Amino acid sequence: MSGFFSSRWVEVPGHVSEAPDAGLPPGFRAGGVACGIKPSGALDLGLLVCDSEACTSAARFTRSGVLAAPVLVTKEHARLNALRAVVVNSGNANAATGQQGIDEAARMQGAAALAGRVGEDQVAVASTGVIGVQLPGDDIIKGLHRCREQLRADGDAEFATAIMTTDKGTKRASLSVELPGGTVRLTGQAKGAGMMQPNFATMLCFVQTDAVLSAETADLLLGVCVKRSFDRISVDGQLSTNDTVILMCSGESGVAVAPESDAERAFGEALDALLRQLAIMIVADGEGSKRIGRVIVYGGAEGPVRTTAYAVANSPLVKTALHGGDPNWGRIAQAIGGALLDADPLALDIAIEGVQVCVAGTAVDFDRSDLEARMAREEVEFVIGLAGSGWETEVLFADLGHEYVTINAEYTT
Amino acid sequence: MSGFFSSRWVEVPGHVSEAPDAGLPPGFRAGGVACGIKPSGALDLGLLVCDSEACTSAARFTRSGVLAAPVLVTKEHARLNALRAVVVNSGNANAATGQQGIDEAARMQGAAALAGRVGEDQVAVASTGVIGVQLPGDDIIKGLHRCREQLRADGDAEFATAIMTTDKGTKRASLSVELPGGTVRLTGQAKGAGMMQPNFATMLCFVQTDAVLSAETADLLLGVCVKRSFDRISVDGQLSTNDTVILMCSGESGVAVAPESDAERAFGEALDALLRQLAIMIVADGEGSKRIGRVIVYGGAEGPVRTTAYAVANSPLVKTALHGGDPNWGRIAQAIGGALLDADPLALDIAIEGVQVCVAGTAVDFDRSDLEARMAREEVEFVIGLAGSGWETEVLFADLGHEYVTINAEYTT
Repeated sequence: MSGFFSSRWVEVPGHVSEAPDAGLPPGFRAGGVACGIKPSGALDLGLLVCDSEACTSAARFTRSGVLAAPVLVTKEHARLNALRAVVVNSGNANAATGQQGIDEAARMQGAAALAGRVGEDQVAVASTGVIGVQLPGDDIIKGLHRCREQLRADGDAEFATAIMTTDKGTKRASLSVELPGGTVRLTGQAKGAGMMQPNFATMLCFVQTDAVLSAETADLLLGVCVKRSFDRISVDGQLSTNDTVILMCSGESGVAVAPESDAERAFGEALDALLRQLAIMIVADGEGSKRIGRVIVYGGAEGPVRTTAYAVANSPLVKTALHGGDPNWGRIAQAIGGALLDADPLALDIAIEGVQVCVAGTAVDFDRSDLEARMAREEVEFVIGLAGSGWETEVLFADLGHEYVTINAEYTT
Repeated sequence: MSGFFSSRWVEVPGHVSEAPDAGLPPGFRAGGVACGIKPSGALDLGLLVCDSEACTSAARFTRSGVLAAPVLVTKEHARLNALRAVVVNSGNANAATGQQGIDEAARMQGAAALAGRVGEDQVAVASTGVIGVQLPGDDIIKGLHRCREQLRADGDAEFATAIMTTDKGTKRASLSVELPGGTVRLTGQAKGAGMMQPNFATMLCFVQTDAVLSAETADLLLGVCVKRSFDRISVDGQLSTNDTVILMCSGESGVAVAPESDAERAFGEALDALLRQLAIMIVADGEGSKRIGRVIVYGGAEGPVRTTAYAVANSPLVKTALHGGDPNWGRIAQAIGGALLDADPLALDIAIEGVQVCVAGTAVDFDRSDLEARMAREEVEFVIGLAGSGWETEVLFADLGHEYVTINAEYTT
C-alpha cells in the first residue's frame, strides 16, 4: 500500500485500506479557524464534535510531573469514557500558568461545549505551544464561536492543520476497515513532536470511528495500541507537559466490536497500524530528521531490555552516527554499557540492518562498505541481544542533525 | 588567580598557587612518543613512572557495563594502592575486543613494567579511542622501548599531549600547596571527554604529588574529590568504557598528610580545586561547546534532586537553548516534569543567573532583555528548587551546538 502507510515497520492488515478523501466517519464533524494565537495568522484553533449521544471514548495523557492546565482540566472535569468533543489550540501550551491557566482551560471547555451543543463534561481540552505564557482566552472564545459555523463532515483537514505547530505537513489518515459485521471507518489526526521549534511542543493524536465499541473496549484497545506506537517513539527523549491521545466511537455504522471477538482483533489491528504509522510520521518529521532508527532489544529481564532500548534511542552519539550514516557500532556498545552500570561483562550481540558486528561483547569481522550502504537507508534497524530470552521491546527514534540545533538554538525566542 | 583556574565555580584556597613550569613533583618522570596508532603521527603513547618505592596510590574507574580491557586488567591485575606507573595509549580504546584485547592490555602492562623498572602489578593501563578494533600491540611494545629513554621530570607536557584525542589543547596543571608541615607539589593531566570525535572517547586523569599519604588517605581524598568533580559533569550523558582517574603519591617531600589533620583538609582542598577545574575544562572543551552550564538543585529527597539535575543537564532542549543564549525556561520545567513522572503538581522554583522566572510551578514576570544578557555569559547558572529541603546537588554541563553534530555525524569513519 502506498500513500499513508509508508514505513516497512508497520504491518498493514489485508482488511484495512485507505479512503483518502472520505472525511470523518459518520457522526463526526470538525473544523479549524485562526483565532490569533499564531502571529503568522495560520489556523490555530480546532474543534471536533460527535453528534451521536451514544458516543464512547478513551484517552491517554502525558505522565509529566508538570501537567499543563488543559490536561488537568480534561482529566479532572471530563467524562473520559463519554467524550463528545475535543477543542485544541496550537501556539500556546497553557502550561506552568497556575490557577489562571486552569481557569482559562475551563473557560475553553465551556465555550466548546456551547459551540458543539454537548455537555461541558463531554469536552476534552488540549493545547500545544509555548510553556509559561498565559492563554489569550478571549481570542479563543471568539474563535470557537466562528468555528461552530464551520463544522463539517470533511473538516478533518482543517482540524489537522489547526493543531500543527511547525510540523512539515498534516499527519492524518482516513481508513476503511472490513470487520466481520460490515465495513467501518477509522480516521486519525496527529501533530508533533520533539519540540520542533523552541516554543512549540507536544504530541497530540485524535482518532474517530463509527464502529460500535463499549467504553471499556475502546480503552483496552487504545491502551494496547498506544503502548505499541506513541509509547515506543523518541525524538529527543523529552516528555511534553501536554501529550494527549483520544479515541472516539460514534457507533453510527451499527457494526459492533464486541470484547474478545474476531471484530475486536480486526479493529485492533487496524488501530495498531494507524497509530504506528502516525507515530513513525512524528519521528520522521521530528526535528529535521534525515533518517529514522528502530532498535529492537531481546533479553532475559524486562528492566535491562527496556533500559537498553532507550539508552540506544536517546544516545546523542548513536543519533549523530545515524544522521551521518556511520556504522560506528562502538557507540551502541558504549551507550548500553553506560546505561547498565556495573554489569560487565555483558554478552552483547549487535546487528545493524541484518549485519552482525558484535557477538558476546566482542567485535566480529564484517563487510564495511556493505554495511555503510545499508546505513544509508531511510529506515535503519538495530537489533541488540542481551543474555537470556523471554523479553523484547522496540523504540523508534529520530537521528540528530544540524536542523535540530538550528531550530532549537538559533531561532531564539 | 589567572591561568589554570579560570572558572568562577572553583574555589581556589589561599594556600594553593600555580607553578606552571615546574614539571612533575619530585619522584616522578614521564614522557610521550608517537607509536603509530594515530594516522596523523601525533603522540599517542605516554608513560609516567614513580621512582619511589614508597609510592602510594588510589584509583577510580568507569562503572560501564562494557568495561574496556585496560580497565579490567588494571582492576584485576594491579595493586591499586601501590601503583608506580601508568601507561596510556590514545587512538584505540581496546574495548569490546574480547580475550585478545585482554591479552594485549596485559602485554602492554608487562612492557611498561620493564620500561619503568617496576613490578608488573604496579602498572596501571589506560586506553582511549575507537571501540571494537584490536590494539596494534607490537607498535606499543616498540613505542614503550623508545619512551623509556625519554622519561624526564618535566615530561608531563609530552605525557599530557600523548593522552589527548581531539582535545583542543592539553589539560594540565602544576601546583604548589602549602601544608602545615611544608610545601608540596601537586600536578595533574587530564583528557576528554564527550566523544569529541566519532572514534575517540573517554575521560582520563592522572594526578601526582610528593606529599606523604597513606594509600587509605589517598583513596579517601580521591573518592571525595572525584564525586565533586568528574562525577558532576556531563557533556552528552554518555559514559565511556574506559574512564580512569589515578592519584599517585611519591612521598619525596617528606611532608605528611595524616588522617583527620589540618594537612589532610588543606591537601584535600587543593586536590578538590585541581580536579574541579580539570573537570570544567573537559566540559568546556567537550564538543565545540560555546558556553557551559551549572545546574544546582535543592529539595527534600535525594532521588528527585539528583534526577532533576541530570534531566536538566542532559536535556537536548536545555542544551540547545544554552547554546543559543535563549532564556526559554519552559524547557527546564518540561525536562524536570518529564523526569519526575506522575509527580504533578511540582512546586518548582527556577532561577537563571540570579533571575527568578518560575515560583511554585507558575510563571512570574521578569526583565527579559536583562536575562538575555545574563544568558550570554560563558558560564550560566540554573538554580532549581523542589519541595522540601536538606538535599542539594550540582551538575556542570556543556551546551549542544552545530560542532557536536559536525564532529559526530559528518566526519564519518
